[in-house]
Amino acid sequence: MNKVIFKIQTKDKKTRARTGEIHTPHGIVRTPNFCAVGTQGTVKALDGQDLQNIGLDIVLANTYHLHIRPGEDIIDKHGGVARMMNWNGPTMTDSGGFQVFSLGVALEQGVGKLLRENDDTLAKPRLNKITEEGVYFQSHIDGTPLFLSPETSIEIQEKIGADLIVAFDDLESPKYTYGQTKKSLELTGRWLKRSKSAHKRKDQLLYGVTHGGGFEDLRIESAKTNDSLFDAIALGGAHTSKENMYDVVRWTIENVDDQKPKHMLGVGEVDDIFKIVELGIDTFDCVIPTRVARMGWYFVYPPEGNPQNRFRKDISKSINAPLLEPLSEQCHCMVCQKYTKAYIFHLFKARELLAYKLITYHNLSFYADLMSKIRNAIEDGSLQKLKKEWLGK
Amino acid sequence: MNKVIFKIQTKDKKTRARTGEIHTPHGIVRTPNFCAVGTQGTVKALDGQDLQNIGLDIVLANTYHLHIRPGEDIIDKHGGVARMMNWNGPTMTDSGGFQVFSLGVALEQGVGKLLRENDDTLAKPRLNKITEEGVYFQSHIDGTPLFLSPETSIEIQEKIGADLIVAFDDLESPKYTYGQTKKSLELTGRWLKRSKSAHKRKDQLLYGVTHGGGFEDLRIESAKTNDSLFDAIALGGAHTSKENMYDVVRWTIENVDDQKPKHMLGVGEVDDIFKIVELGIDTFDCVIPTRVARMGWYFVYPPEGNPQNRFRKDISKSINAPLLEPLSEQCHCMVCQKYTKAYIFHLFKARELLAYKLITYHNLSFYADLMSKIRNAIEDGSLQKLKKEWLGK
Repeated sequence: MNKVIFKIQTKDKKTRARTGEIHTPHGIVRTPNFCAVGTQGTVKALDGQDLQNIGLDIVLANTYHLHIRPGEDIIDKHGGVARMMNWNGPTMTDSGGFQVFSLGVALEQGVGKLLRENDDTLAKPRLNKITEEGVYFQSHIDGTPLFLSPETSIEIQEKIGADLIVAFDDLESPKYTYGQTKKSLELTGRWLKRSKSAHKRKDQLLYGVTHGGGFEDLRIESAKTNDSLFDAIALGGAHTSKENMYDVVRWTIENVDDQKPKHMLGVGEVDDIFKIVELGIDTFDCVIPTRVARMGWYFVYPPEGNPQNRFRKDISKSINAPLLEPLSEQCHCMVCQKYTKAYIFHLFKARELLAYKLITYHNLSFYADLMSKIRNAIEDGSLQKLKKEWLGK
Repeated sequence: MNKVIFKIQTKDKKTRARTGEIHTPHGIVRTPNFCAVGTQGTVKALDGQDLQNIGLDIVLANTYHLHIRPGEDIIDKHGGVARMMNWNGPTMTDSGGFQVFSLGVALEQGVGKLLRENDDTLAKPRLNKITEEGVYFQSHIDGTPLFLSPETSIEIQEKIGADLIVAFDDLESPKYTYGQTKKSLELTGRWLKRSKSAHKRKDQLLYGVTHGGGFEDLRIESAKTNDSLFDAIALGGAHTSKENMYDVVRWTIENVDDQKPKHMLGVGEVDDIFKIVELGIDTFDCVIPTRVARMGWYFVYPPEGNPQNRFRKDISKSINAPLLEPLSEQCHCMVCQKYTKAYIFHLFKARELLAYKLITYHNLSFYADLMSKIRNAIEDGSLQKLKKEWLGK
């Protein structure tokens, strides 16, 4: 049984950015990299072959969603989520903590988002109950009573069978006071230890997860706790505000072993990726490229794309109706080689299923290419030049 | 500019079934064959590469829908519908007559179906007005006043650029009296002549279209009229009842030149295909395999599939939840090689877009394979044996 190994290859001279490789039983993840999100065991609208053709290195699936449907036992019988979805490459799962948070205080305080759509349960009051043992909650699908704890989360993740998995955590609300955040962090600390004890599969790399809201001392304490327990670190609950987020990353990174792989949970705007790669993060996951695709947003390269338009444009604008050009002249993906804006505009207006596939495919190709450009720039010492081209500063 | 040519290869000894090839500027259609339906210029949920990988020979798109959206001019600028959709193989368009019928008497008499979904205009009264010149109607999308005539239908079809196109017709309602049907047929007769006169593109094969309801003398008259005008014949308005349909095909086929290619519009149940191939039809089009896919129905081979279950089963049944087997053990398509029933069940229950792609892909693969089996059986003289295996009689 192969262990997951992280090797740093090149370090940037001016920043903490580095390139590396995470070797997993399902293949190599070149870092820095971006995990396409396949919430329910499918990257929406794409099949396994599409994911390979795009050139993705890794897919992230959600423990909470897969536990509810189709259930970890049937995934295990397939030989794991990668095999079930005919991706067969490296995968990661989160702990379920974020989704449980979305059903709880996030609902009460209006600060959450549950990584799914077409559901009206978000309007309801708190749907979970947090105890020392774990979290009691109801399925957002059918109301079935459910329970997640460090032990159950790890057991589920072992059955889902991803290469990279994450310890179970209690998420702090960005509206928490210092005292509330500290209390949540202490609970997370106990859950992290229980997660580590529960984890048996040696072919999976277990990421700790850091918290502490926007409070420097708590973030530092959390970083040190995680560093003492885990060989890999994920940053959680950090995307409350952009400026604060960069501080949080810095406080964390500076207090964990440089040699360990570091994952940034739920972050993925283009400008964030540049800035956080520089702070030393190796991997990201985010629904942005896939979710906005289904709303008709496609990503574009600079100078057409820039931080002001968030590197995206809207295919549904009627200006696209007569355009025989690709979504992006600078993109080499299958969609940009084979299809026109006029056709994709037509498909999107007609709500044809193919529209969602083509835009999703393009957006993930864009992200894969962006990460490749970042890796190459780190390796040849031109990261600042690349960042200036993209962000203009 | 290449002309479209039809060559008969093998004739069955016991029936009128035959194999052949339709040579088009975009490639060869082996006959008998089935046209996958891409109503709006896309076979729902599949991209052009999928269509090639499935092994389809030809795709049928709808003139009415494409005229409304995206419009024939932009399709023409792409170099035709085949190129726009990255299919690049042979294509066919219908005349728009069926859709105009669906907006008119079919609404009034409750006998129509418009080849689209998610629209409530079907509940409204008649939306068209038929004159000698042509049909005035309103777009089902936005109510825009529109007009289709033999000349405009042909002009639109020339711009859409399919290899096989169909003359503009007035569809009879199955509830019409003899007198009404005769009157409609006379109008169609005048429109067929105008369609032929309007048609200029020599690289397209123009199919006539036969009508006459369930009345033998009218069907024979229509067959002879069409035979005198066209090098290819489509059968229209024939699927009113199954038994009557076979009579209608017989009356028609016996009164047109055996050497001409013959297309059966809108027909495609498995048993119909067997029976109508035997009557001498070369090509079919039907939304069944694609439409039912989106409702969760997947096609299965005999003996699991049979005329009673219409060769299909329902993926949404919970019996599928734990099954690690393919949709069909006898199917060699990509979906059956790579994905399990359990996974597709999960995707379908979760309304994941990939579910629709995978089942559509399988169903069209099934149809492509069925047509291949029929061609092979005709060539080696075993059509009756194959038919017995499939239909049990």
